[in-house]
Order: sequence, then structure tokens, then C-alpha cells
Amino acid sequence: MTRLWNEPENFADEMIDGFVRANGRWVRKVSGGVTRSTRSEEPTVSLVIGGGSGHYPAFGGLVGHGLAHGAAMGNLFASPSAQQVESVARASDQGRGILLSYGKYAGDVLHFTEAQDKLRADGIDCRTVTVTDDIFSAPADEKDRRRGIAGDLTVFKVAGAAAAAGYDLDGVERAAILANDRTRTMGVAFTGCTLPGADEPLFSVPEGRMAIGLGIHGEPGIDEVDIPTADGLGEMFVERLLADAEIPDGVSVQGARVVPILNGLGSVKNEEMYIVFARIATLLEDAGIELVDPQVGEFCTSFDMAGVSLTLLWLDDELESLWSAPADTPAFRTGSVDSTSLVERDEIDDSIADEVIPDASDDSRRAATTIVKALDAVKAVIDENADELGRIDAIAGDGDHGIGMKRGSHAAVDAAHVSLDKGAGAQSVLASAADAWSNKGGGTSGAIWGVILRTVGEHLGNTDAVESARVADGLGSARQAVMDFGKAKVGDKTMVDSLAPFADTLTERVAAGDTLIDAWAAASTAAKNAADATADMMPGMGRARSHGEKSLGVADPGAVSLAMIAAAVLDVLRAASDH
Amino acid sequence: MTRLWNEPENFADEMIDGFVRANGRWVRKVSGGVTRSTRSEEPTVSLVIGGGSGHYPAFGGLVGHGLAHGAAMGNLFASPSAQQVESVARASDQGRGILLSYGKYAGDVLHFTEAQDKLRADGIDCRTVTVTDDIFSAPADEKDRRRGIAGDLTVFKVAGAAAAAGYDLDGVERAAILANDRTRTMGVAFTGCTLPGADEPLFSVPEGRMAIGLGIHGEPGIDEVDIPTADGLGEMFVERLLADAEIPDGVSVQGARVVPILNGLGSVKNEEMYIVFARIATLLEDAGIELVDPQVGEFCTSFDMAGVSLTLLWLDDELESLWSAPADTPAFRTGSVDSTSLVERDEIDDSIADEVIPDASDDSRRAATTIVKALDAVKAVIDENADELGRIDAIAGDGDHGIGMKRGSHAAVDAAHVSLDKGAGAQSVLASAADAWSNKGGGTSGAIWGVILRTVGEHLGNTDAVESARVADGLGSARQAVMDFGKAKVGDKTMVDSLAPFADTLTERVAAGDTLIDAWAAASTAAKNAADATADMMPGMGRARSHGEKSLGVADPGAVSLAMIAAAVLDVLRAASDH
Repeated sequence: MTRLWNEPENFADEMIDGFVRANGRWVRKVSGGVTRSTRSEEPTVSLVIGGGSGHYPAFGGLVGHGLAHGAAMGNLFASPSAQQVESVARASDQGRGILLSYGKYAGDVLHFTEAQDKLRADGIDCRTVTVTDDIFSAPADEKDRRRGIAGDLTVFKVAGAAAAAGYDLDGVERAAILANDRTRTMGVAFTGCTLPGADEPLFSVPEGRMAIGLGIHGEPGIDEVDIPTADGLGEMFVERLLADAEIPDGVSVQGARVVPILNGLGSVKNEEMYIVFARIATLLEDAGIELVDPQVGEFCTSFDMAGVSLTLLWLDDELESLWSAPADTPAFRTGSVDSTSLVERDEIDDSIADEVIPDASDDSRRAATTIVKALDAVKAVIDENADELGRIDAIAGDGDHGIGMKRGSHAAVDAAHVSLDKGAGAQSVLASAADAWSNKGGGTSGAIWGVILRTVGEHLGNTDAVESARVADGLGSARQAVMDFGKAKVGDKTMVDSLAPFADTLTERVAAGDTLIDAWAAASTAAKNAADATADMMPGMGRARSHGEKSLGVADPGAVSLAMIAAAVLDVLRAASDH
Repeated sequence: MTRLWNEPENFADEMIDGFVRANGRWVRKVSGGVTRSTRSEEPTVSLVIGGGSGHYPAFGGLVGHGLAHGAAMGNLFASPSAQQVESVARASDQGRGILLSYGKYAGDVLHFTEAQDKLRADGIDCRTVTVTDDIFSAPADEKDRRRGIAGDLTVFKVAGAAAAAGYDLDGVERAAILANDRTRTMGVAFTGCTLPGADEPLFSVPEGRMAIGLGIHGEPGIDEVDIPTADGLGEMFVERLLADAEIPDGVSVQGARVVPILNGLGSVKNEEMYIVFARIATLLEDAGIELVDPQVGEFCTSFDMAGVSLTLLWLDDELESLWSAPADTPAFRTGSVDSTSLVERDEIDDSIADEVIPDASDDSRRAATTIVKALDAVKAVIDENADELGRIDAIAGDGDHGIGMKRGSHAAVDAAHVSLDKGAGAQSVLASAADAWSNKGGGTSGAIWGVILRTVGEHLGNTDAVESARVADGLGSARQAVMDFGKAKVGDKTMVDSLAPFADTLTERVAAGDTLIDAWAAASTAAKNAADATADMMPGMGRARSHGEKSLGVADPGAVSLAMIAAAVLDVLRAASDH
């Protein structure tokens, strides 16, 4: 379990501080993560990686010469926000284009894509290669739907080396895609990690048993067996990874050259891994494979989760040359980097310009006061239910929903109060709350709540009186924006399952002449019923699916929290109308 | 806990195999451990390090250019045997002398010193610098009595860099002594590790509590407190390590340059350590200290023990230059090593010449048959009691006594049978059993049982009839040899406490005319009573003492196992006389 922290909610920020203080030779802190503290004399394509924190050395530990130029470092197990990614990318840009690369999870896809859109809008050539190496998260013929786990390293290393070798953005992108196509990982786990401040592990595996294919945030695996011997585990790894479907196109096993990476997730230690590795090496060699530069250690962890994964990178000549190129980062060093060729970077300006508060009408300011009260109530209801939301999320997902909603709603409330005190109207208050929620909440829920608050605010404006129809229209637009953003539809077991009936009911009732309070009450009930009904659904968006999985009998945490929030806001609306 | 192995007794051997297969770029396997797979063009002083396994990257992970030339890798938490150290040293020798360096534990001191004596007898200039950095294992004015923990790294790194820089043996030794004088470590722990195949952790700390000063094998600490915040732990570390008594002579804190090393023992992860490090960095800087090349990671572990230690290396100009020099090993890489200056080494001959069996008389061969039966009985009684011996050893020591005795007695029995089948007499059978026990048993007990069997064998010879007086004389000499070897006396709570009354009683009774069986029976009873009485003694040799410790109410495991063995041999003697 995780034992050392000051305040759980500050964990990621303080961790990044310490990381930067210990590794100033390689990295410098910028808003949203880190960027290199040195630059090469000739500008290159920049590789920007990132993801949630709790996976050290992924992601900040892989920033340095020959590897990444910057890492967006999100909160614990939560995607960095679009703002964080954008800030790190701008600080890492050298004018030759940016490759974004990260493990494929819904929250990361949302935020990195939003950042990419903003960078492109500014004329920066920006591409994305997601890592999809986890063979158990989708079938082989749907590799694109797989999650990214320890195979992050091969894709980042190859892309970073390509950038250092002077490849243009097309070339770096092509090399990263090739590396991902030729990378496969299988993981197993014995126990889960306990996040800082949490009472219980994210998941548990019975004593003496081993979960196969379990994700690095505790996402469900495909099977559970008795713990095998070290040799038995080595045999299981090799058998699965040498299955026909996992051999990349155009590769012949006999005579192949492969980098094997045996990765410890946290508390499976090197001694154990070396015993497993001995068997793996024999089996791969017996299959006619030549091992190149084997790696045994920790490359993508999950706090102190007891687990281990084997990654195979199937080389061709280009990949071998890029894999073998020198690299020098806090946590991955190979070959000989001539540090005399690196120069210290100038100061990096990553400050964000002071927000200008647009003028607002008295009506809109009054509405803003009610909105801030509603946000206070949202924060309170989330605080009260955060543990339960985390618990139901841990059953099918990564267990961070409660923590993420708590962080996001706290940040939103703080920002909204500041904005209100500066005289902001409804739209400005909601916009600042939206930015803060998205930025600090992280993950999928942070992104989505950012979209909801921002979209509703756009319909309310700063000068108009707040009318029921505007509220209903705002929520209707938010419903559509969320579905577009996350590519989820009703029935995918996501928060859309309660957002859609909420918005639809609200629109219908307002159109039928109900007061806002009555319409909101009906919409809340609809949301609550719909959220409860998600307990019978199969999981969809929010994580990659595993083979043959069944409904897990718990409701979707995003749908549940939306219904809770709707109910809490109803109480505020009622109280406001009583005055 | 440790979960992945094939057979617990093969753990260390298989681990070394896998380690070498993964890291052939740096290391090659030799009998007893590893040596570098490359050499520099000019021969240098050789640095040979070592210790028990289970502390990765200590010790094999630190072999490579700029660091060690070889590592003797003992069994789990057990010193390598003298033969292992000697073999690794010979394979690493470049003709310019050898520095042996290791953490100060009784077993390691015994075996490394024996190896040093043999190397010196062969005309190889060989010196020793032990690492004594653990501030809680003895008071500051007795630094020489302290244990070695994570500070191993600073001493090895400085000595390895001095060797690479071309220093002669005097110079390398001087630099290593200076580094040790200027290195201090404080450690804490939250949970113990469970050795492969063991049912229970070596030690436990109550939930929510933290043990202060606990050793890397679970040796007792000095205090236990509630787990502090990350900041609180950082403050505790800095306060203790900046106490006046821990500032090396001639150093002024204000303006000092210090390398801080925050070391995770296994399952305290980087994220947590970075939060603690942030506070440490602030406090050290506030004290006027300049931080040089901070290290946060795993440098000396204890399987998956949850613990963390802070080491400070107080630099002078020479130490700073040696610390900062390039190094390239499986687990520690810094700066830029020009690998073109390294050449692959030729094949290393570390085979041991075939044993020649001296001629033996029929009488001596008959006695050898009884000796082998006695060894069979020893093996059986150890097997039966290994868990209990481990348990009582874990209370005051490192918990490896049962495992070590089992490994040693099994190897001794195997070797004795081979020797007997080749027609060996009493002395030869005992000599081969002695070598095997010492080599495979490892630790203090392996060394001591090697001495006992060898010494008794020397008194029996291969041609004489085995008489009671020879047996008694042999045990009297063995008693003296063990006391000389381990520098322990009666009352130090070691196996000498039962060996001495056993040998003395045997000698007295044989001199008084008793049969060997009667004399042995009386001696066994004396040994048993004396072993039981050690439960009331304070611990002495066998580990470094901690401040103000009390008798722990359990008997010394070495004294207990000697009494068990004496009783088991008595049964064999009786059965043999019945025929």
C-alpha cells in the first residue's frame, strides 16, 4: 500500500516537485508536467508523452535526450487535462512539429485530442500515435482498441530516437506506428495497489491466485489461476505472445530479433523477475528468436501492485537501430550520450495570461450567485459519496472516479468563487469552473464535466437573464457535445446513459410549460432511474473491453454521479426560489 | 511477499542465471557470482564486492565499467562462502591488486577474510574496506561496529571510480575508507519481506506503525512510531543525519556539498519517495548544504520489504570527482562511458581442479561410513527443525539460520556420499562435507560448520583407527578454531555457548575413561542445557548491536542447532555400536 504522503489530494503535485528537484539535470517543471532542461543544438521534432501519475518511470522519468521532450503528468491514474498537455507541448516545441504519444485510454484520448486540436489551430503540426500493446484488452484483429501498458516504452523510445536522429514529423510518426504495430504485452497480477488516502486496494486477487490480463489500473483481466512456478509463468507468457495472432504481419518467428522487456508493476522484485526471465530466454531462443538488449526492471508500474508483464518488440533493421540508440533520462539510460552536445535551455515561459472577466449584467451576476451555490452543493454531495463512487468504479474501471470527481469539483468551486468575487456573470463563472474541473479533475470525468459546464455557460451568457429555455437548451447542447466528445451512445454504460434522459426530460418539460424547478425535478428522477438501470448493462466506453466479459452488476459511476449532482442542484434551485 | 520461484532452495542460483542472461553486456557468470564481461585496455586495481542475495541491485547489478569488477553473490540473505569470494576475486584479478568491499556483517567478515587470506597466501595483494553506514546499529563513536546498508553504493562507486582512474591499491583503499567515513544512512520500515518458500514474513511491524533503524534483513531497530506524513519522515531523516555526532570530522555543514540517496527497500515506490525527497531537499538546503547529483530509487533492497532509507555522502573535491565519474552497470549508469575503450574478455577459467582422494585404511573407511550416517541424521534433524530455527533467528537476527543450515547440511551429505563412494577415509569425507557446507550453506553458520567438520577430520586422518581420544581432541580443537575464527567467547550468545560445554564435557569424560557413547551423551546434555540458557543472554556476535537492547527471551539458533546435531549424532553412534 501507499503510506507516505502529506495530503492525498496534493500527492501528484508534490510528487512532481520532488521528481524535478531530484532530476534537474534532465527535466524542468512547466505547467502540466515537465520538459527537458537541455536542448540539442539542432532543433528536432518534439515527442510529448504523458498520462496519469502512479506509473513511474512512466511518464516523467522518460524525458531526456534520445527519448521524450516533455511529459504531461496527470493526477493519480487520471489523464492530464487538455490544458496540461497543451502547456507541456508548447514548452517542448522546437518548431519542427510535435508527436503526441500515450497509452490508449478514453480519458487520455479525450484530453490529448483536445490539446492537439488547439495546437493545430495555432498552426503547429501535431500528430498522435497511441500505444495499444495489451493483448488481453481486445482481440488481435482489433489491435487498435487495445490499451497501452508497458509497451509504452518501446514506442516512446523508437519515436524519441527517430526525433534525435533528425527524422521529420512524418518519419517520427511512421516509426512510432511501426513500433506500436510490432509491440505486444501480456501482464499478470497478484495484488492491487492502494491509492494514497484510500482505505482499500483498488482490486484484490485471492491469496495464492494470479489474475491474467489485468490492467495497470486494476481493469478486469480475462482469467484467474493458481500462482504458477516461475518457469510456469515464463511458459505462459511465451506461449501467449508467440500465438500466431500476435506475430506482427510480415515477421517470421524463426530468425526474428526481439527485445524482451520484463516489467515489474511495483512489488514483484528483480530477483523473482530474473528467475522468470531465465525461462523466457530459453523458450524464445528455442523458438529460433535472437534476443536483443533484454530489459528486466520497472518501466511502467502501478504504485506497489504485485504484478509483472512481458513485452516483445519485434525488430526490423530500422527499429533495432532506433531502439539501440543512446538515451539519457532520469530512469532509462543506455549507450553513451555525449552531453557536451547538449546546452541548457533558456527560461521557459509557461505562465498563463491573466483571465479577463467580461462585463456582466446584474441579472447574470445574480444567476452566477445561484450557480456558485449549486457548485458548492455539488462539491458536498461528491465529498459525501466519493468513496462509494470509487468503489463501484474499481469493479469495472480504474477506481479513480470518486477521487477525480472530488478533485474536479473542489477546483471548480474554488475557481467559481474567485470569478464571482471579480463580478463575473453566469457564463464566466461556469467557464472558469469548467476549466478548473477539467484541469484538476483529470481523467474522462474531468474532461466531460468541463464540457458540460462550458456548454451550459455558453447558452446562459453574461448579460442575459437566465431563463428556463436557455438552461434546457444548454443541457441539450451539452448532451450532444459529450456524446461527440467521447464517442459514446446511450447503452454503452457511461454517464451518457443518465445525461441523455436528464437533458431530454428537461427539454420536454420546459417546452411543455413546467417551471424550471418542476422540469428539473422530473429530469433528476429520470436520470436517477437511468443510472440505476446501468447496473444491468455491459461496460462500454471508458476503458477497453476484455474478451467475453459480462455485466458486473454495478451501475456506471459516471451515470450515478450525474444523477447525484442533478438532485443536489435541485435542492439549491428550490432554496433559491424560496427566497 | 515473494511469489515467483521454482524450488526455494534453487532461488539464488536461478536468479543469478537469469541476471547474467539479461545482462551479458556487462557481466559474465563465474563460480560464486559474476565478473565483468569486458575489460579496459589498461589493467587496474580490481574491486570485488558481494554479500547475500535478495538486495538487488546489490551486488551483481553494480558490476561494470566505473564500478565493481566482480560480485560474489551468496544465497538469500547469506554471505557468499570463502570459496565463492575467492573464485570471483581470481576471475576479476588484473594483477594490480584487489580491494574487497562489502557491508559489515559477521558472516561476510568471516568468509571474505578467509578468502583474503588465501589470495594473500598466493601472493595477491588484497585489502578490505567494510561499509558501516547504518547509524542505528552502533553509536557514532563506534562507527566501525556499524552495519552496512544503502551506503554500500557510495563506497563501491568511489572505489570503482578510483580504480578506473588508475589509482594504485593504496589509493583505492584510501578513497574507499574516506567514502565510508563520510557516509551515513538512516532507514525505516513498515513491513518485512517473506523469503521464497517461507510461510511468514521475516518480521512484522504493526499496521500504521513505522520501525526506525531496522536492518535490511529485519534486524531489530531502535524505536517504533506512528507512520508520519511524508514531510514528517523527511524531517526525521534530516534531523537525525544532521546531528553533530553524524557530521564527519573536518566537515562544516554550512557550505557542504552532499550527495543524498533516497533508497527504496522494495515496495515503497518512487512516487512516495519523491514527495519525501522534496522535503529533504528543502531542509538540507535550508541548512546551507548544496545538493550534488541526488539519487532517488532502489540501490539496496530487501526483496519487497516496505522501507526507505536516506544516505548522505559528504563530499570533498576528490570524492566529488570520483562520485561523478561515468559508470555503466546493469543497474547504475551515469555520465558517458566510452564503450569503444572496452574490449570483450577472453574465456575465464574458473573451473576447480578435480579432487584427488587420498588413500585410506579399511578402519578409516568403516569410520567414514558411520560419519556419513551421522551426516544423514544431521540433515534429517535440521530439515525437521529448519522452520523453528528460522523463526527464532528472525527475532534477533536475520532469519536465515534454518535455511542456511538446511542448504549446508544437504550439500554436506551429498558431497560426503560422493567421497565415500570413491573410497575416501574419515578425514577426506569430513573435508568434502566441510567444503560443501561452507560453500553452499553460506552465512556465519556455513563458515563455522565448515571449520568444525574440517578440524575434526584433521584429527581423525585417513589411515588411523578412529579412537575416542581423537574425536574428543578434534572437537576440542574445533571449539578453539571456531572461537578464533568468529572472535566470539562464551556468553556472547552464539553457538560457542553450546559448543564449548559440549567439547569440554566430551574431553573430560573421555579422559575419565567413559566410552565414546557415554561421553557423547553427557556432552550432548551439557550442550542442550547451555543452548537453553542462551535465552536469557544478551545477543553478541552475529550481528551489530543496537542501542540499549535487551535479551529477547529466545535462545541463540546456532547454539540450539548444535545441541540438536549432537543429539542426532548420538543416536547414530548408539545404532552403530549395536551392530
